[in-house]
Amino acid sequence: MINAKKYIIEKVERAKNASKKLGLIPTVVKNRALLKIAENILKNSGRIISENLKDIENAEKQKLSSALIDRLKLNEKRIVSMTDGLKQIAKLPDPIGEVIEKIKRPNGLKIEKIRVPLGVIGIIYESRPNVTVDSVGLCLKSGNCAILRGGSSAINSNKILSKIICDAVYSSGIPDGTIEFIDNTDRIIISEILRLSNYIDCIIPRGGEGLIKYIRENSSVPVIAHGKGVCHVYVDKYADIEKAVKISFNAKVQRPGVCNAMETLLVHKDIAKNFLPVMLAEYKKADVEIRGCEKTRKIVGGIKFATENDWYTEYLNLILSVKVVSSIAEAITHIEKYGSHHSDAIITENKKSAEKFLKEVDSAAVYHNASTRFTDGGEFGMGAEIGISTQKIHARGPMGLRELTSYKFVVHGNGQIRK
Amino acid sequence: MINAKKYIIEKVERAKNASKKLGLIPTVVKNRALLKIAENILKNSGRIISENLKDIENAEKQKLSSALIDRLKLNEKRIVSMTDGLKQIAKLPDPIGEVIEKIKRPNGLKIEKIRVPLGVIGIIYESRPNVTVDSVGLCLKSGNCAILRGGSSAINSNKILSKIICDAVYSSGIPDGTIEFIDNTDRIIISEILRLSNYIDCIIPRGGEGLIKYIRENSSVPVIAHGKGVCHVYVDKYADIEKAVKISFNAKVQRPGVCNAMETLLVHKDIAKNFLPVMLAEYKKADVEIRGCEKTRKIVGGIKFATENDWYTEYLNLILSVKVVSSIAEAITHIEKYGSHHSDAIITENKKSAEKFLKEVDSAAVYHNASTRFTDGGEFGMGAEIGISTQKIHARGPMGLRELTSYKFVVHGNGQIRK
Repeated sequence: MINAKKYIIEKVERAKNASKKLGLIPTVVKNRALLKIAENILKNSGRIISENLKDIENAEKQKLSSALIDRLKLNEKRIVSMTDGLKQIAKLPDPIGEVIEKIKRPNGLKIEKIRVPLGVIGIIYESRPNVTVDSVGLCLKSGNCAILRGGSSAINSNKILSKIICDAVYSSGIPDGTIEFIDNTDRIIISEILRLSNYIDCIIPRGGEGLIKYIRENSSVPVIAHGKGVCHVYVDKYADIEKAVKISFNAKVQRPGVCNAMETLLVHKDIAKNFLPVMLAEYKKADVEIRGCEKTRKIVGGIKFATENDWYTEYLNLILSVKVVSSIAEAITHIEKYGSHHSDAIITENKKSAEKFLKEVDSAAVYHNASTRFTDGGEFGMGAEIGISTQKIHARGPMGLRELTSYKFVVHGNGQIRK
Repeated sequence: MINAKKYIIEKVERAKNASKKLGLIPTVVKNRALLKIAENILKNSGRIISENLKDIENAEKQKLSSALIDRLKLNEKRIVSMTDGLKQIAKLPDPIGEVIEKIKRPNGLKIEKIRVPLGVIGIIYESRPNVTVDSVGLCLKSGNCAILRGGSSAINSNKILSKIICDAVYSSGIPDGTIEFIDNTDRIIISEILRLSNYIDCIIPRGGEGLIKYIRENSSVPVIAHGKGVCHVYVDKYADIEKAVKISFNAKVQRPGVCNAMETLLVHKDIAKNFLPVMLAEYKKADVEIRGCEKTRKIVGGIKFATENDWYTEYLNLILSVKVVSSIAEAITHIEKYGSHHSDAIITENKKSAEKFLKEVDSAAVYHNASTRFTDGGEFGMGAEIGISTQKIHARGPMGLRELTSYKFVVHGNGQIRK
């Protein structure tokens, strides 16, 4: 316990000191370091894969789920994709130093609101080793030091990745302490981290609901969390059926395991009889399991009954809840009650319905005639992303480089005093 | 305990429901409600003062400090000032609905980033009853419902104020539940509030260090806190002595009891002998108690010795720590170590010194040749303020209407699906 505390304090102190220098490092140096990491990762892909194999074997021994093992796995393709991410981040504009606003006051004071790094960011994550690389890329470019705490299942992969990363950044002129990887996978470390508000400016948890809930409830450091995605598509009575089928199919099937995939389809009663048989036939071809409300089951036979619990569920799988609603108001009420305020879409050709939905649905992203799958930093033109926030404080929706920054007011005077 | 929970849940549920409507209320209705509150407060000033007298008498019976009794006190002048604040807020532009950014994507998606309210804001404060009125004004205008929990010492004042406020807003077309005042001053209520992250979007504590620390450490709801202000003025070796004297005097003396007043004066050794005797003579005339470092005491006799603890202290009083430093780097290191990242100023005629200081001092507001006393929503041209954030997440520095908002992405498509 005392050792865990000492161990982590040493790391965060180094990071805190580094953060004072890192915020002042020129863009060109940060970009060079990013490209160097990418280069070294590619050079060492064989070693990375063999270390990753140890994690995979351990996971198999422990009979972890195949979904988890898949998240854990690194292969050539995934390694290239991680390094492509770094190269892309190197190309993005540097957010630090940006003048967000200029204010000139009647007393002659010139105030500039200037973008600065948050400082030290703690990333607490689970089995995906690519989070190590993505987080370093985004933190480094935005001038933030990173305290990385990955899950025990990925420890061998993370150790080799963090070694490669540190070798690359510290040989590129980045201050020592910028990246602190925590190789102690004892759970007690997390509770220690959550108390270090004097050193860490922000915690970003990445992982399952349990981890995020634990961190939210136990952290005295501010948390930016991306919660689960119980996303809806509402097919309005004025929907174009062809668009509705295409979008509803895409939102569920194109990549069901991610947070912006649809989990519940809401259908207006006046269009249900025309729309549902076509739609559900499409889903059948893609092996989507349907759980329907009473009305849905009357229109299309042979489907399971959706329970109250289904409406709250993020399946992350080829399962879909379907409900027939009597009005757009009922659809909105359903989304507000059961949804997770992530991404929700209306399919309609009626302007008023669209406006009502877009205004009243209180989600990070609301869509008119497009798939919920677009909620993504890349798709929104922000470059890379560190997650999708479902909270309202600080950042909402996809979080890119800018969302990892704060600002300061720089005030230029010539002797002004307050009267 | 069960009753406390039930009591508070009923209130936050009402607020949560109201927040869904309040965000859609037109500006004109919100402004009318603000002016109506002001009108009703003025009309009832006699009743307010007599209820406030009960609080004052209780405070005197309990022998509370004169500073606290002063914060508690309402008189005609303070009542007029509260209502002036409301009138000013009514005049400010409505932040809600503002299009922050427009993005057009190659696939034809039109994305708008639109400003929306946070939702439900919990304000937890201590003895100042004007916080009740200020918070209502700012929350209402920014479309947020307010859960108000004032201190027990101001309970009579807050009860009458919240009654007047609710009468005014609910007769102006504002949804029932928008303002929920908590008249139960049991401490257990605060710990209940801090767990209601399903209902409350953000907690803003206003009060002493102890309250803010308790809330930071125990809240699972995101917190935006304004911490203490240990502000510095650094008189560089290239300072204009006349400016330095004027600004240093203003920063300490003009209103010593507030967070943006200076607590520590740092002086470059090369200018100390010319500057300090003049400066300290000015402070003497204003009865400022000086606590100096060894070098300061060598230059000006008869002053107290500053202890290590003094450098950390927010006096909020006519006391000042003074330190002679050997370089601008030492000044910056001192500020980073002992300061609270609130407001810090450099006085210099040298551009390079100014740039170094403004870049390297990591505070919400940094000043060149101006008094730290300007860190204030009004002085920065933001209109009213709900506090000054010394954290980096969400908002930093003065927090006005905009800082009480979030945003959502509204995406307009014509059938786009993700490939």
